[in-house]
Amino acid sequence: MARIALDAMGGDFAPEAPIAGALQALAELDAAHSIQLVGQTAVIEATLSKLLSGEYAGGAGQRARLEIIEAPDVIEMTDKPTTVRKKPESSMAVGLQLQADGRSDGFVSAGNTGAQMAGSLFILGLHQGMTRPAIATLFPTARNPIVVLDSGANVDCSAAELVQFARIGAVYAEDLLGRTDPSIGLLSIGEEPEKGNAVVKEANQLLASSGLNFQGNVEGRDIPRGESDRGPLDVVVCDGFVGNVLLKFYEAVAPTVMKMLAGALKLDRETAQKAFGALDYAEHGGAPLLGVKGVSIISHGRSSARAMKNAIRKAVQAAESGMNDHIGRRLAEGEEVKA
Amino acid sequence: MARIALDAMGGDFAPEAPIAGALQALAELDAAHSIQLVGQTAVIEATLSKLLSGEYAGGAGQRARLEIIEAPDVIEMTDKPTTVRKKPESSMAVGLQLQADGRSDGFVSAGNTGAQMAGSLFILGLHQGMTRPAIATLFPTARNPIVVLDSGANVDCSAAELVQFARIGAVYAEDLLGRTDPSIGLLSIGEEPEKGNAVVKEANQLLASSGLNFQGNVEGRDIPRGESDRGPLDVVVCDGFVGNVLLKFYEAVAPTVMKMLAGALKLDRETAQKAFGALDYAEHGGAPLLGVKGVSIISHGRSSARAMKNAIRKAVQAAESGMNDHIGRRLAEGEEVKA
Repeated sequence: MARIALDAMGGDFAPEAPIAGALQALAELDAAHSIQLVGQTAVIEATLSKLLSGEYAGGAGQRARLEIIEAPDVIEMTDKPTTVRKKPESSMAVGLQLQADGRSDGFVSAGNTGAQMAGSLFILGLHQGMTRPAIATLFPTARNPIVVLDSGANVDCSAAELVQFARIGAVYAEDLLGRTDPSIGLLSIGEEPEKGNAVVKEANQLLASSGLNFQGNVEGRDIPRGESDRGPLDVVVCDGFVGNVLLKFYEAVAPTVMKMLAGALKLDRETAQKAFGALDYAEHGGAPLLGVKGVSIISHGRSSARAMKNAIRKAVQAAESGMNDHIGRRLAEGEEVKA
Repeated sequence: MARIALDAMGGDFAPEAPIAGALQALAELDAAHSIQLVGQTAVIEATLSKLLSGEYAGGAGQRARLEIIEAPDVIEMTDKPTTVRKKPESSMAVGLQLQADGRSDGFVSAGNTGAQMAGSLFILGLHQGMTRPAIATLFPTARNPIVVLDSGANVDCSAAELVQFARIGAVYAEDLLGRTDPSIGLLSIGEEPEKGNAVVKEANQLLASSGLNFQGNVEGRDIPRGESDRGPLDVVVCDGFVGNVLLKFYEAVAPTVMKMLAGALKLDRETAQKAFGALDYAEHGGAPLLGVKGVSIISHGRSSARAMKNAIRKAVQAAESGMNDHIGRRLAEGEEVKA
C-alpha cells in the first residue's frame, strides 16, 4: 500500500496532465494504493470535475482514492531552484514535506526540476554516505533498458561521487528492474582503465575495489547496444554533464530517425511510432532522484497524462520495493568496504 | 591537383581495404589527382596485383596515378602514440613527412589514432593560435550534417581551446560543406549562458565576443535535429570526452535502431540499410585532425574500402579548397580579435 503525492501544479500541461495521469494510474494500480493531489484545491477540483464528466467519465470510482492537499503557492518553471525554500506553501514543498512527515510514500512532479532537486535535498535530506544526489534515467537499448546516472543533477562530479552513484544505481536496477547483481560500467572514451579524464581514471580504480560487480570502462557505443564486449550492462555511471547531453541526444534520436525513415520507407506515422515504441520516453515516465531519503520522481516538463501515469507507477514500485531503505543499507555497507 | 599519401598498412583490414579504397577513389576522382601508397613495397605490390587481377580488374588504368613510397616499419594498433617518434620509418611517419617536405598534399590513415595524432603534431606542427588539435566529425542530422569537434583528441579542454575549435570548425564547414557564415553552438545542458560546467560557462562568454556567428549554448537534442530553437546549426563545439562519447553512441544507434525496427516492421536487412544510409558512417569516410599545419584525415580502424575511398576524397577536397591556409588566416584574425 503506497500513498503517492503528486504535484498537480507542475509541468507544461498542468493541472490536466498530472490529474489525468493520476486517474489513469489508479485505474491500473491495485486498489490499496492512493494518490495525494497537491496544489490549489479549487483548481484541482475544477479539473477533476471536468475530467470525470468528460474523457474520464468511467473514473468516478477512483475518486475515493484521491486526496486533495491544499498548497496555495506554485513554483514557476522559470523560478530559481532555491525558490522552493522561499515558498514553503508551494505544491512542490508541501508534497515533499508530506513524505518527510511520514504521511506519504513518494513524490512525483513534472514541475521545475531544479526546484525539485533542491527541495528534495532540503526537505528529505541525503542518505549517509552520499555527498550529492543523482538523477537515474532508463535508456532503452537493443537488449534491456540500462540505468544511466547521473543524468543531470550535477555538472561536475568527483571520483568518490561516481562510486556513490554506482552503489545506488545498482539498487535501482535490483529493485525496479529486477536485475540480480547488476553489472556496472563507467562511461569513458576507451575500455582500458587508463583511458578517460582524471576523474574517470580515479573512479575506475575506486570502483575496482568497491565490492560492486564492476565491468570496467564502457564506451558510448555500449549504451545503445545494452552491453559491452565484456557482457550485458545494467548500470552506466557518468557525471551529470555527459549524462544530460546523452539523455537529450537520445530523446531526440527517435523522432529524428523516425522522420528520416518515414521518408525512406514511406511509413505512415502510426506504424513508425509503433515500431519505435521502445524508444518512447513517455513509456518510462520519470526518473528518480536517488540518494535523498525518500522517493522523488522527476518527470519531463512536457509529460503527457500517460507519462505522468507511468511516473506514478514508478513511485509506487519504488515505495513498495523498499528501495529507499535498501539504498540506505547498501551505502552503509559501502562505508564498511572503505573503512 | 592533389597528391594524397595513404597509409597502406593502417587499419583492421589493411593492406587490402586502403589499397582497394585508393583504386575506388582514383576511378571517381579527376585524373589530375594521385595517391601515394605508403608502406612495405613488397606487401603493397602483392596486394595491388591481387586486386587488379581480381575484383578491380578494370582498374589497371589507375595504376599510373599510384606511387609506392617505401616505409619498412608498421605502427601496431596497440602501440603507444609516442611510438611514431621511435619509428620514423613507419608508414605513419613517412606519410606525414612527405607532406612536411612539400611532396604531398594530404595524409589518410585508418591505423593507430593516437599515433596519427601524435605524429601529425610532431611532424606537421600546430598552427599559430592553436594549443591543441581537435578531431572534427560529421554527425548526420534530420537537416544537414553538423561538424562536431572535438570528438576525441583531448579529454579536457580549456575555454580558450573551445573557442579555437569553433574557429577552425567554422572553416571546415565553409570549405568542405559549403556553409556560409556557419552557425556555431556550444554544447551544454541548457540554453541559458549560465548553464553548464565552469569551462563551458567561460567559453560561452568568450565565444559571444569572438566575432564568430555564435548561437549560444545548445543541448544534446539539437544535434540529431540539426538545429536549436534559435535556428540551423553548422558546428557544435565540446570537449573531446563528451564528443567521443556522443560519437560512439551515435555510431551504435543506427545498428541498434535497425535491429529493433527489423523486428517490429519485419524489414529485410537490405531495405533497413538503405533507409539508414544517412546514418552510415562509411559514407563520411574520415575525420580531419584540425589545427595541425596540413591535412591529416583519421579513419576508423574498421574502415572498409568504401570508407577509405571517402576518406581519400575528403583529403582531396581539403587540399583543393586550401582549407589549411584558410585555417591559418582565420586563426590570425582570431588573434587580432583578442588583441
